[in-house]
Amino acid sequence: MSSEPDAPTTSIASHGAEDVFIRGVSLCKDLIGQRSFTEVIYFQILGRMPTSDQSALIDACLVALMEHGLTPSVLAARLTYSSAPEALQGAVAAGLLGVGSRFVGSMEGCAALLQRVVNAEDGAAEATRIAVEHRAARTALPGFGHPTHKPDDPRAQRLLELAHERNVASKHVAAIAALSNAIDATYGRHITINATGAIAAVLGDCGVPAEIARGFGLIARCAGLVGHLYEEQQKPTLRATWEAAERAVPYEAGKGEG
Amino acid sequence: MSSEPDAPTTSIASHGAEDVFIRGVSLCKDLIGQRSFTEVIYFQILGRMPTSDQSALIDACLVALMEHGLTPSVLAARLTYSSAPEALQGAVAAGLLGVGSRFVGSMEGCAALLQRVVNAEDGAAEATRIAVEHRAARTALPGFGHPTHKPDDPRAQRLLELAHERNVASKHVAAIAALSNAIDATYGRHITINATGAIAAVLGDCGVPAEIARGFGLIARCAGLVGHLYEEQQKPTLRATWEAAERAVPYEAGKGEG
Amino acid sequence: MSSEPDAPTTSIASHGAEDVFIRGVSLCKDLIGQRSFTEVIYFQILGRMPTSDQSALIDACLVALMEHGLTPSVLAARLTYSSAPEALQGAVAAGLLGVGSRFVGSMEGCAALLQRVVNAEDGAAEATRIAVEHRAARTALPGFGHPTHKPDDPRAQRLLELAHERNVASKHVAAIAALSNAIDATYGRHITINATGAIAAVLGDCGVPAEIARGFGLIARCAGLVGHLYEEQQKPTLRATWEAAERAVPYEAGKGEG
Amino acid sequence: MSSEPDAPTTSIASHGAEDVFIRGVSLCKDLIGQRSFTEVIYFQILGRMPTSDQSALIDACLVALMEHGLTPSVLAARLTYSSAPEALQGAVAAGLLGVGSRFVGSMEGCAALLQRVVNAEDGAAEATRIAVEHRAARTALPGFGHPTHKPDDPRAQRLLELAHERNVASKHVAAIAALSNAIDATYGRHITINATGAIAAVLGDCGVPAEIARGFGLIARCAGLVGHLYEEQQKPTLRATWEAAERAVPYEAGKGEG
Repeated sequence: MSSEPDAPTTSIASHGAEDVFIRGVSLCKDLIGQRSFTEVIYFQILGRMPTSDQSALIDACLVALMEHGLTPSVLAARLTYSSAPEALQGAVAAGLLGVGSRFVGSMEGCAALLQRVVNAEDGAAEATRIAVEHRAARTALPGFGHPTHKPDDPRAQRLLELAHERNVASKHVAAIAALSNAIDATYGRHITINATGAIAAVLGDCGVPAEIARGFGLIARCAGLVGHLYEEQQKPTLRATWEAAERAVPYEAGKGEG
Repeated sequence: MSSEPDAPTTSIASHGAEDVFIRGVSLCKDLIGQRSFTEVIYFQILGRMPTSDQSALIDACLVALMEHGLTPSVLAARLTYSSAPEALQGAVAAGLLGVGSRFVGSMEGCAALLQRVVNAEDGAAEATRIAVEHRAARTALPGFGHPTHKPDDPRAQRLLELAHERNVASKHVAAIAALSNAIDATYGRHITINATGAIAAVLGDCGVPAEIARGFGLIARCAGLVGHLYEEQQKPTLRATWEAAERAVPYEAGKGEG
Repeated sequence: MSSEPDAPTTSIASHGAEDVFIRGVSLCKDLIGQRSFTEVIYFQILGRMPTSDQSALIDACLVALMEHGLTPSVLAARLTYSSAPEALQGAVAAGLLGVGSRFVGSMEGCAALLQRVVNAEDGAAEATRIAVEHRAARTALPGFGHPTHKPDDPRAQRLLELAHERNVASKHVAAIAALSNAIDATYGRHITINATGAIAAVLGDCGVPAEIARGFGLIARCAGLVGHLYEEQQKPTLRATWEAAERAVPYEAGKGEG
Repeated sequence: MSSEPDAPTTSIASHGAEDVFIRGVSLCKDLIGQRSFTEVIYFQILGRMPTSDQSALIDACLVALMEHGLTPSVLAARLTYSSAPEALQGAVAAGLLGVGSRFVGSMEGCAALLQRVVNAEDGAAEATRIAVEHRAARTALPGFGHPTHKPDDPRAQRLLELAHERNVASKHVAAIAALSNAIDATYGRHITINATGAIAAVLGDCGVPAEIARGFGLIARCAGLVGHLYEEQQKPTLRATWEAAERAVPYEAGKGEG
């Protein structure tokens, strides 16, 4: 813990009796009614206002991430809400706890690979190196592959297309194209760039650092969870899900022991 | 649990190999790149697209709710992140667990009062009844009062002004004005409409039901927490906060026992 | 917030270079190796060591609360673990978020009813009043009734029996017996005292205040969740539960809208 | 996800109208009132009853882990409780989310090192290899070192002593002794075995696999958090902690930007 500064400060917000300031900008005069939620998200996190093209791409990434149906994260949130309806925040928190390394978190892994390609002297060679390494180790390639969206993930295609249309596409979008080519050549078949792969590239070219990219997934999914919990309030699924799970995972004597 | 339907369904999302649909609308063709995050939030939760004026007001509410400095919720998230940096989602979840009845949750209480005024035959009389009841019971009026923003909370003023400018202001904004008048008359002094009060009124006039209003607070705060955690990654505050808390709450033998 | 003391203190723990003290007692000399986990739980929370009979009853309550199969709380924890295996603590937290008002939290509601009976001048009359009130309002009686354990919940019977054997049974156990009689007479049929009802009574007679009773449910369930997550590590159920839930809650156009 | 069994089962609990069974054993006849909470924790997780000596050591580890004063985890739980007092479970969950890799989670890292020593043909040589590797990489040695407990952590000493007294000490306790010797020799100074190091060794010799060891930390800390939240109910610290944190981490324009 010796690396912590003796006197840390915060530069995010300050307030007085007459206003609140986010990074020095008046919340009441210059943000509320002047800027979209997406613009202020970017501004609060990164300390600079996005261009309108960057803002359009951030919007697109958040929209693409928001909703994926009855995922494990949504199921956890709904089960929690119907068990503890006194605390909507608890159900949202339970859902977000599943936004981890296995699903949405693959953005981070892909962003790290793109960083390697971007930083390499010879990007194409580095992309091939990554593909060969993963093939040899038989490990999953974060940002690539999808069980149902074949041959291509339509969300990824749309996001990358939009990045070109808006002239946001730059080094990270080029890196994922290079990586995709290298992967197809190395594996001898086409493996789609999936939604989290495209988002990693687009966020990278919008200036979002890899270490906070997962945060955009959390914001988008938080919104998605609220919609599911409003539906759960009106049409509870707890009983149906619970009974289905009990049938799907029956009791069997002695087989689960350590 | 007898009130649960035998065969609940979900109407939020469906997907095939070629696209994902949110409430029947193509994610790839009609949402990504076509609609803002705020519009899709509203659409996914409520099942209809907002008008551009409603969208502007939802943006304004989310922006107003997003950031309030080093609140207890932010402190909980930062302390958790620096204790368990392997899981950004855990830190965000810890922060959201503090978005409860005492702070942001007051939106819900205020929305319930506004509902009473809106539904009454004589709204002004109902507003007076609410003020008199709360004064007699010496209970807090959700949506009213602020320790530092006096005489008026500038965020609330801006939000209500914007609701009028955009012609979104309707029954709920009228109800909070009636309630404010009744409160000032009953208490014999001016008590400000605070940010959560104005947001309750504006969300009500945007068609957001009271029972899910807190969800908008959760979405906005989720974004705010991500910004604080990115700052925490770069400038850890754990050690400073921890030591300050230990000094502020010293050990005293035997005084905390049950 | 005016009720908060200006200078709060804590009386739980202190430490120096040579030892840690819990409520003034040496952790290393007098607790580790000298006292059971259950005794130290009681001591840390309540500030006094339990008698051996109280300790036996607290053990019995924790054992009775620990495990109830694939409950919604367990399902939420397992779904979260398999989505975010990097953070066991996140999965346990997700599971505990479902330990709310609907299931385990009924302990608190029952404890409040028992308090009314205990504090009344005429306990039997108060018990009848409670039964009549609930029958008229058609509201659930916390601590009473069970869908499968009929005519009686065997856990409740065992716990109350043990409270008598160990001479821990006192005012709260008498109160639940009085309440049970009043309920059977008022409703004209036998409604079982369930596990959370018996636990409310037993914890009350062990000196655990109603406002922290749910905490014992959280401790017990935390242990139960750890067992399920160890099984989930070895035999993942995510895929089976997810698919079963998707079949049980199918997509239906337009029926979930607000 | 191909590694998931097609038809997973659970072997933890089953129930009928007359009883609940944990791993085939009657909850009402053979566990409630017959076995301690600690014994049933071990039994539910691992599928076998501990010996009385193992049970004593598990008790000792849980007692040692339970309480460490106003840690970041406790602060997060208290801040959350006073923000959302409607949901005790949310505050406990927030606290547990901080039981991560940096503090209690070091058990897991230490357990992995002990496993290397235990599995090596020449344990002493492997211990030296571990010490040399960590010294060269300048990385922290999980389970070793403590800022205030010098020269030795008294909890670690007591736990290891108890493991010998109860004849539980075996390969893992021997491994931590070997590792400690190798570390002192390699670094040229004495670095204490800390509490999480001793617990890793003792749990290992009690038959607890490394991958679930952190679970025992979560159970113990859950109990500790309940005690702090009961104190928070009676003597709220939110205001004092919040103000202290704001003073300790002041606003500074422009220094926190990305």
